[in-house]
Amino acid sequence: MAGVDYLAFERIKAQFDVNELKIVWAGSREEFELSDRISRLVANDPVFRKDDRASLDRKELFKNTLRKAAYAWKKIIELRLTEQEANKLRTFVDQPAFTDLHWGMFVPAIKGQGTDEQQAKWLPLANKMQIIGCYAQTELGHGSNVQGLETTATFDPQTDEFVIHSPTLTSSKWWPGGLGKISTHAIVYARLITDGQDQGVHGFIVQLRSLDDHLPLSGITVGDIGMKFGNAAYNSMDNGVLSFDHVRIPRNQMLMRVSQVTREGKYVQSSVPRQLIYGTMVYVRQAIVADASTALSRAVCIATRYSAVRRQFGSQNGGLETQVIDYKTQQARLFPLLASAYAFRFVSEWLKWLYTDVTQRLQANDFSTLPEAHACTAGLKSLTTTATADGIEECRKLCGGHGYLTSSGLPELFAVYVPACTYEGDNTVLLLQVARHLVKTISQLGSGKKPVGTTAYLARVEQLLQYQSDVTRAEDWLKPNVVIEAFEARAARMNVAVAQNLSKFTNPEEGFQELSADLVEAAAAHCQLIVVSKFIEKLQQDIPGKGVKQQLQALCSIYALFLLHKHLGDFLSTGCINQKQGSLANELLRSLYSQVRPNAIALVDAFNHSDHLLGSTLGRYDGNVYPKLYEEAWKDPLNDSVVPDGFHQYVQPILRQQLRNARL
Amino acid sequence: MAGVDYLAFERIKAQFDVNELKIVWAGSREEFELSDRISRLVANDPVFRKDDRASLDRKELFKNTLRKAAYAWKKIIELRLTEQEANKLRTFVDQPAFTDLHWGMFVPAIKGQGTDEQQAKWLPLANKMQIIGCYAQTELGHGSNVQGLETTATFDPQTDEFVIHSPTLTSSKWWPGGLGKISTHAIVYARLITDGQDQGVHGFIVQLRSLDDHLPLSGITVGDIGMKFGNAAYNSMDNGVLSFDHVRIPRNQMLMRVSQVTREGKYVQSSVPRQLIYGTMVYVRQAIVADASTALSRAVCIATRYSAVRRQFGSQNGGLETQVIDYKTQQARLFPLLASAYAFRFVSEWLKWLYTDVTQRLQANDFSTLPEAHACTAGLKSLTTTATADGIEECRKLCGGHGYLTSSGLPELFAVYVPACTYEGDNTVLLLQVARHLVKTISQLGSGKKPVGTTAYLARVEQLLQYQSDVTRAEDWLKPNVVIEAFEARAARMNVAVAQNLSKFTNPEEGFQELSADLVEAAAAHCQLIVVSKFIEKLQQDIPGKGVKQQLQALCSIYALFLLHKHLGDFLSTGCINQKQGSLANELLRSLYSQVRPNAIALVDAFNHSDHLLGSTLGRYDGNVYPKLYEEAWKDPLNDSVVPDGFHQYVQPILRQQLRNARL
Repeated sequence: MAGVDYLAFERIKAQFDVNELKIVWAGSREEFELSDRISRLVANDPVFRKDDRASLDRKELFKNTLRKAAYAWKKIIELRLTEQEANKLRTFVDQPAFTDLHWGMFVPAIKGQGTDEQQAKWLPLANKMQIIGCYAQTELGHGSNVQGLETTATFDPQTDEFVIHSPTLTSSKWWPGGLGKISTHAIVYARLITDGQDQGVHGFIVQLRSLDDHLPLSGITVGDIGMKFGNAAYNSMDNGVLSFDHVRIPRNQMLMRVSQVTREGKYVQSSVPRQLIYGTMVYVRQAIVADASTALSRAVCIATRYSAVRRQFGSQNGGLETQVIDYKTQQARLFPLLASAYAFRFVSEWLKWLYTDVTQRLQANDFSTLPEAHACTAGLKSLTTTATADGIEECRKLCGGHGYLTSSGLPELFAVYVPACTYEGDNTVLLLQVARHLVKTISQLGSGKKPVGTTAYLARVEQLLQYQSDVTRAEDWLKPNVVIEAFEARAARMNVAVAQNLSKFTNPEEGFQELSADLVEAAAAHCQLIVVSKFIEKLQQDIPGKGVKQQLQALCSIYALFLLHKHLGDFLSTGCINQKQGSLANELLRSLYSQVRPNAIALVDAFNHSDHLLGSTLGRYDGNVYPKLYEEAWKDPLNDSVVPDGFHQYVQPILRQQLRNARL
Repeated sequence: MAGVDYLAFERIKAQFDVNELKIVWAGSREEFELSDRISRLVANDPVFRKDDRASLDRKELFKNTLRKAAYAWKKIIELRLTEQEANKLRTFVDQPAFTDLHWGMFVPAIKGQGTDEQQAKWLPLANKMQIIGCYAQTELGHGSNVQGLETTATFDPQTDEFVIHSPTLTSSKWWPGGLGKISTHAIVYARLITDGQDQGVHGFIVQLRSLDDHLPLSGITVGDIGMKFGNAAYNSMDNGVLSFDHVRIPRNQMLMRVSQVTREGKYVQSSVPRQLIYGTMVYVRQAIVADASTALSRAVCIATRYSAVRRQFGSQNGGLETQVIDYKTQQARLFPLLASAYAFRFVSEWLKWLYTDVTQRLQANDFSTLPEAHACTAGLKSLTTTATADGIEECRKLCGGHGYLTSSGLPELFAVYVPACTYEGDNTVLLLQVARHLVKTISQLGSGKKPVGTTAYLARVEQLLQYQSDVTRAEDWLKPNVVIEAFEARAARMNVAVAQNLSKFTNPEEGFQELSADLVEAAAAHCQLIVVSKFIEKLQQDIPGKGVKQQLQALCSIYALFLLHKHLGDFLSTGCINQKQGSLANELLRSLYSQVRPNAIALVDAFNHSDHLLGSTLGRYDGNVYPKLYEEAWKDPLNDSVVPDGFHQYVQPILRQQLRNARL
């Protein structure tokens, strides 16, 4: 790596202290140091190399994943890593594996939904990986609608057992990661039946495979569900199918923290409030938003560096062509994504705070902020994952033809990222949940119920319905309050309008269904307001480092004004701004792009992504793109031989006009 | 296949004659019959099966592709298929192969750019595939900017040869399909140097590999460039890298129809006008637009059928859940794509006519419509390929989690389709070409130069600048002229506005660069107008078949009003319509969705896609989705054994706490 830095001429242009911004991005100096240390540890270990992944077949890829998982676990033990360090290490290994579900879903489910005794029994086993677990909720025929799951868990008072059963083909568990080939246990969600009564969906700890020979236990059919999007991507994961033929488990393997079945088969609620479960949901979604910012930042880093290396057109007198990053069309697509990566970072930071706040309130039996927190995290999960998936693909396109090569890192990043739009709540279904909450909040305004948290602005709805932007010059759009008010007014008006339209229906559910496309748009406007506000709030804090705050202010304005331009129809049709003000925003956007341009490379350096993590010939730190692309090409298995396998059998007979007698 | 039709209940709802619409979609009865016949021929032949592709490794996939190509060619010869039939057959085989470039680029380049003698020599060889050719234009460092290519072809008068040479790493040819492992010959684009003078980029026929042993000839380095996006997708193609070390070819292998190098090394232009080359470009792009409609229709067909099978939420009293297709949010995302598939079909049909028209004019030395035709095809290529790539991915998301499985057919369709956004002109670069043409057209309006073809409306620019929509009721938006005028006024105003802004710059090129993001938006508005107009023109023709025209009218309105809603900011900010009219359009859209709903399945049946072509567990004609998904899963190589390879080595030591001594 002791080579030339082909991007040095870009790095010296930066007008801010990139090391200080690295700390802002990481969240704190400690976070930065931790990430930096673990990231190097992974990057420097040849076992974790991933440049050979795309050409492995499914079995080889899977075996390679098992090896990495075991090696990572060995490192974690040997180096006595903390839980936080261990998580970082798994993240930087950057290859989906059964361990993700074990640590990310199985263990937390037992912690969150198990009684103290259950935790005492199962957590030590799980923490040492003496058992490996997964999370079996979705079924072949049932995803978003958890209440529609078909698997049954019928209590048999005779034997004090539950009988887990899959009554139909569509009730087969389908998708759980780690289930297909590896997990020894699963948290299985099933309809609890006691005394002939359906008590709704509950979680059960079920052993799937023998701890001796790893064969499925009697009554259990389990396997992998097959190939998924991308070359490697999620194909390193054994997403599985599972069905039960009257499998018996002891009664104490129902997760009983919130509700129990007694020895007599009586179904009873515990004193632990159901709402506790929602705390977990806030936690999981906060993590998804943080992941979105990371994934988007990776794509943006690759596209930005390559845009500075790539030159096309504009050569004068035989000189160098123009760097692609200097084209306004490239900037107008790339810089809003750069700004989005930062925006999502800061909103995820705020969501961490929200999780702490909600948890403390729950412990104090204060459920008042829960619906708002729930809606807010649902909306932010939807907004950030959709924008990130689209943004990664946009970055790929911004790299032109070469972005289509897996060696660019972008196709795999896209393929491994997109499921985030669907899992943990389909993004459209989530926006409808937000809409439902907003409509309810608006309907209660009259009754004096004060909207809380991110909906607090709706208390000023009268004022917002009167609002008209007073922007007269492009620079006015740099003022935070000008931006916030316009976004508040737009969100308030769209939501009030759709709420009014809803009230015209005699059957509210019918109205909700009929107007659902409008509801989704109004909910999205609300979610965009949240991201913009949290970015602005972040900038009201003290941010050290030469020039750092100025850069973030420019990015914040770009994020907001890019949204305003993209959704100009909303702002104009609600009358929040006029045509002239919209065009001033666009004008400012152009000058902000010029302002960001010299800082672009340093702004993506601040993510501190290692070349290992990026896994990209185009996004290399040193910008030495072309030799690396060339070198990578020759590694393809097709280049193992000069004349490819199949040539003599299938091509030569064509060339020699001997096809008639060829055996094909 | 003699099974139950699980979508029969949907098919009987259709309010039109689906067989008649099949013919409209195909273009004519003959086209329909041809496609139907060849499609069945491919679908019924086990050699052409493609359900096993995703799990093949690169070498296996490539060998499988060679086999299919040979087998297809054998069939073509045995059945004495016409050129048209042969092309159809290759299309329905649906696996990118070296033959695509041989027939689609190599042969046409010789026909278009070769002299009569060159054609007489090379075409018989190529037509019998005694040689196999590819098209080597792009280089590692040069794509969009053809004039920036670095490869040189220096005439050596001593030997009457050209010396083909790659002076730098970045001058390596990079991307040409069929080049990597198979082609024996290539059309190589290189800078012609005669007598020390650079004459610009020209095409040369260069032999790459020996016809005896297929080894690269002396001075030639050639190989495959490695893995690309997707599991199978374009990995069946040997996109290649190629460099020359002073390779000599006879002078008569420069393609000399338009310009020649004489025995003495003089560079001369022939009497054949350069513009003839542009005719080919119109032809190629028309084909790309037609492909866009086909690709989008495949995705829409899969998503529509699955949306009718999939049920989620809304179960009452234990009854069936609601079909996903009945949700307005699903309709609002799916039906505009259904409408787009039809819109792109009809605009591609019109482009076929345009090609004929341009060709006839060129033959009569009439170049007057060429710039407009060139801009128009560039814009339509850009619009339709972008919308199709995004649309396929949207359809995948509309299939929820299961759309992420390769067995859904959608990930591969996306991965194999997206390069269309980049090849044959990057979509943003193309829109800038359109913009340049529009600005020029507008600037010439004063001088009395009459705009032609799709820009003819700009002659009425004064009137369009005055225009205000007179829509007062939602149904007004059903009137074709109301829609056309609004789209014309919007496109005219956006383009006039940006042209005016441009005129403020003293350096026009600087202005063009500074305002390029606005120029792209204005050009896109113009292109959308073209698609809307051509759809409307199609409906002014006689369209037989019960109810067919009504369905197409509904789809046409959906296409136009969906665009209007999506780009509401344009329509409002230019003052073409007011807020109320925008909201009436949205209202009408909702009722059009309800109108399309009962016809949705029949509208996708009309594409007449075979289950083989769709290659989708979710999009099956009979709707028997779940058993098929289940069956496909078990075919994955990971399910070959119950305990996966790697378990004993890498997982058991973890479970048994014996990792410390394990060899990983």
